[in-house]
Amino acid sequence: MSYLQELKLAVFGPGLLGGSLLLDAARLGIRDVRAWARRQETVDVLRQRGLAETATTCAREAAEGADLIILAVPVGAMEPLTREILKAQLPPDAVITDVGSVKGMVLTGAGARCREAGVAFVGSHPMAGSEAVGLDAARAGLFDGAACILTPEADTAPAAVRAVESFWQSLGCRVSRMEAAYHDDVVARISHMPHAAAAAVTLAAMEKDPSIAAFAAGGLRDTTRVASGDAGMWREILLENRAAVLPALEDLHRLTGDLLEMLRDADDDKLLRFLAEARRLRATRYA
Amino acid sequence: MSYLQELKLAVFGPGLLGGSLLLDAARLGIRDVRAWARRQETVDVLRQRGLAETATTCAREAAEGADLIILAVPVGAMEPLTREILKAQLPPDAVITDVGSVKGMVLTGAGARCREAGVAFVGSHPMAGSEAVGLDAARAGLFDGAACILTPEADTAPAAVRAVESFWQSLGCRVSRMEAAYHDDVVARISHMPHAAAAAVTLAAMEKDPSIAAFAAGGLRDTTRVASGDAGMWREILLENRAAVLPALEDLHRLTGDLLEMLRDADDDKLLRFLAEARRLRATRYA
Repeated sequence: MSYLQELKLAVFGPGLLGGSLLLDAARLGIRDVRAWARRQETVDVLRQRGLAETATTCAREAAEGADLIILAVPVGAMEPLTREILKAQLPPDAVITDVGSVKGMVLTGAGARCREAGVAFVGSHPMAGSEAVGLDAARAGLFDGAACILTPEADTAPAAVRAVESFWQSLGCRVSRMEAAYHDDVVARISHMPHAAAAAVTLAAMEKDPSIAAFAAGGLRDTTRVASGDAGMWREILLENRAAVLPALEDLHRLTGDLLEMLRDADDDKLLRFLAEARRLRATRYA
Repeated sequence: MSYLQELKLAVFGPGLLGGSLLLDAARLGIRDVRAWARRQETVDVLRQRGLAETATTCAREAAEGADLIILAVPVGAMEPLTREILKAQLPPDAVITDVGSVKGMVLTGAGARCREAGVAFVGSHPMAGSEAVGLDAARAGLFDGAACILTPEADTAPAAVRAVESFWQSLGCRVSRMEAAYHDDVVARISHMPHAAAAAVTLAAMEKDPSIAAFAAGGLRDTTRVASGDAGMWREILLENRAAVLPALEDLHRLTGDLLEMLRDADDDKLLRFLAEARRLRATRYA
């Protein structure tokens, strides 16, 4: 894979996703890997662990001459960071991408700054998070087998889209493309709303008497698992994608209201149809 | 374990739980094992697979002389079946128990019939189900490590409670005791409400466009897993325990409404507290 060996890769933000990217970069034989971290302590750790050729708190230094720049910081931090990155000298075919869970906001922020500067930007969403966070949770192979959604715009240079696509594919991702607005609707339904629901289920189950959870089996554990995610990170995601999360959460609220009514009325026909339809829909995705 | 070798065990209903009991009985060296099934076809399978010394569709025949009788049929079928069982000659220290997810209804049904007949009844709820059902899903060791809640009444003979407790412990269960009404409140919160929630999340995520689930990672899979449970069985459980499920589901409905309001208002402080409290509560039970 000489293309990867020659690649100059810069990863901004060595958390779970960024740190895993650095581990995968070493595995793939990418020789010129730069890592940017906000805090000097993290830069020291990156150097001690030999996770990048260059580790720095200077965005411009990390970006200088890079072919592929990946923003792995919180979505709210991407636009100001991109302004710093764009002060560096970049090759004409340089591409900037990201790993954010929300894409509309990224395109109007970091993406718009790149457009003004004449640098290609392609939004990416590799769906490989977990409830763990931080560099300590990073691991090689995190992206292997994950879905990764790209959200190029109508006028994004095809070569830039292909470069980003190839990179994720080399990590083992199943890459697809969709419009940013559609992406945000999709993840609101399949990720953000279920996350909010898991938090609500946890509170409804445990807020009156947490000790009763000692009797719970795997059902409560799995239904609430994602509620163990970092609260600050998920607060940001839900707010950044609120336009798409709101209708999904409205549907959930309506459906729990329907369930309440069926139970109050002891309407066994409606209840059976509700449960059977959920079971049928789930079976279209999961064995 | 000579106590187990001498035990005359009768299992009524060889589904997931009853079938697993039969497999465990063989493993534990219980020599006199009887199995009752509603359908002759199931009796034939039990005989072919050698899962019981006696397999029959006659409740009285299966129960005759048994020391420990376990009802592993749907809760709604327990009372009429118990009437049949009580026509058999039972030893003076015979005990009847069950595996139902709801205990109040079982005590006022099967339990009351036993009381009238002077036969000891101790409600049991081994929490070892899964979304699978039926004899084909049964396996030895299903109960190993599971919580099992007994709901004896104030005047239940202590020896009967100890006999049921010993049996579940020999299968590897962590046994505890509580009042039936409290049990029903607990399982409404930790099992039945989360089950209803998983169905509602599945519908909210997938009913408009099931194809978007192709992009989902482990979050949606886990949050909705229990929604793959048998719809008919869960309809019964939710209705049988509706007095306890209703307040738990009302809390869930209120909490999803709270989330909606926080998102509409973009109230980041409240949203952070909500998510952080859910995370904290969950961490009291799950690592």
